[in-house]
Amino acid sequence: MKKAVILLSGGLDSATTLAIARSEAYDCYALSLDYGQRHRAELQAAAAVAQSLGASAHRVVKLDLSMFGGSALTDSSIAVPTSPGVGIPVTYVPARNTIMLSLALAWMEVLAASDIFIGANAVDYSGYPDCRPEYIAAFERMANLALKSAVEGEAVGILAPLIALSKADIIRRGIELGVDYSQTVSCYQADEAGRACGRCDSCRLRRQGFTAAGVPDPTRYFA
Amino acid sequence: MKKAVILLSGGLDSATTLAIARSEAYDCYALSLDYGQRHRAELQAAAAVAQSLGASAHRVVKLDLSMFGGSALTDSSIAVPTSPGVGIPVTYVPARNTIMLSLALAWMEVLAASDIFIGANAVDYSGYPDCRPEYIAAFERMANLALKSAVEGEAVGILAPLIALSKADIIRRGIELGVDYSQTVSCYQADEAGRACGRCDSCRLRRQGFTAAGVPDPTRYFA
Repeated sequence: MKKAVILLSGGLDSATTLAIARSEAYDCYALSLDYGQRHRAELQAAAAVAQSLGASAHRVVKLDLSMFGGSALTDSSIAVPTSPGVGIPVTYVPARNTIMLSLALAWMEVLAASDIFIGANAVDYSGYPDCRPEYIAAFERMANLALKSAVEGEAVGILAPLIALSKADIIRRGIELGVDYSQTVSCYQADEAGRACGRCDSCRLRRQGFTAAGVPDPTRYFA
Repeated sequence: MKKAVILLSGGLDSATTLAIARSEAYDCYALSLDYGQRHRAELQAAAAVAQSLGASAHRVVKLDLSMFGGSALTDSSIAVPTSPGVGIPVTYVPARNTIMLSLALAWMEVLAASDIFIGANAVDYSGYPDCRPEYIAAFERMANLALKSAVEGEAVGILAPLIALSKADIIRRGIELGVDYSQTVSCYQADEAGRACGRCDSCRLRRQGFTAAGVPDPTRYFA
């Protein structure tokens, strides 16, 4: 049975990604990062999603990215924006996807897994550079030069099955695969109970996605 | 003044790398990783080296790589070898350089630094795949697709000035630049006082380097 490490934030995209990997008969190892994010309810959501979608294991790596600052998601002095802006937003966390993929590489090698799944999405991607297909391809190329296992002959894959899908397409695919989106938390400033603000970029994209997919939005909002 | 993030383990190579970056007029930010390594004296050595070579700041990121296992450096059930083996040794830590470079990317972006220095070396490299020039080049290419600052026009560099030097060349260069090698710890199983075993791969390469360079070995050995 093929093994894969799945980056699981607890949001809508990564939950769908885990469901896709399971549907492709992977033995799935879910990895979450506790990086000092504001939206702590994400991590509880990740644990619930990992269990309900049949991950064989779920690990949370603790890494304090707030020591570097520079993002509204880790620096409480920078406000989370509630209206669309221009360019790359302040919710961008420097090098976050690179760090998460690097940690997944370490676990992949120990597990002898063949692939890493990441829920990166280039359509409704909020302008983050590390969600583009060219970035994913460059990371894969680097990974195949970095790992002992890859150098010894087992090429590894970095798979981003959502990369070209709209949020509505992602939701339709997830519903087909039995994802319970009420377990997921996407909001950048969710409260401790996992309720969403309904106003940040992430909430807006998610709400528009449910509307466009014609699926009732199961999100609990506090505002 | 150009800024750079320097990966500083506390060993001979990274100390020399910091000295080279300083000699090239970089404002240097030293980054160490507390990854659950056996040789804890490394981190104290890193702090001493950062100070004596004039780093503007030194940060230690705590990240427990022992949760993934798979290396003699983080898994106490795997013995550190004391004689040369064949192939990639058990002291290889899965994805370690990729993880360290990824953390440096995050700090680089917040600092608006232009370069990252890493003391990777392909000559006396013990067979680690992530110490080869093609790996460093692939990481640099990926980094320039990952970072907001790079995408907006400021290309970043991943510099490995030791990559083609022998251990003896590295030591000669460091001596020219005033590195105090008695502050550095290379041993994979150094004791709490920073004394070296004299028998592991890292000790052997280091000792041979001092001999070949014609420089007295300042290393304190416990055996």
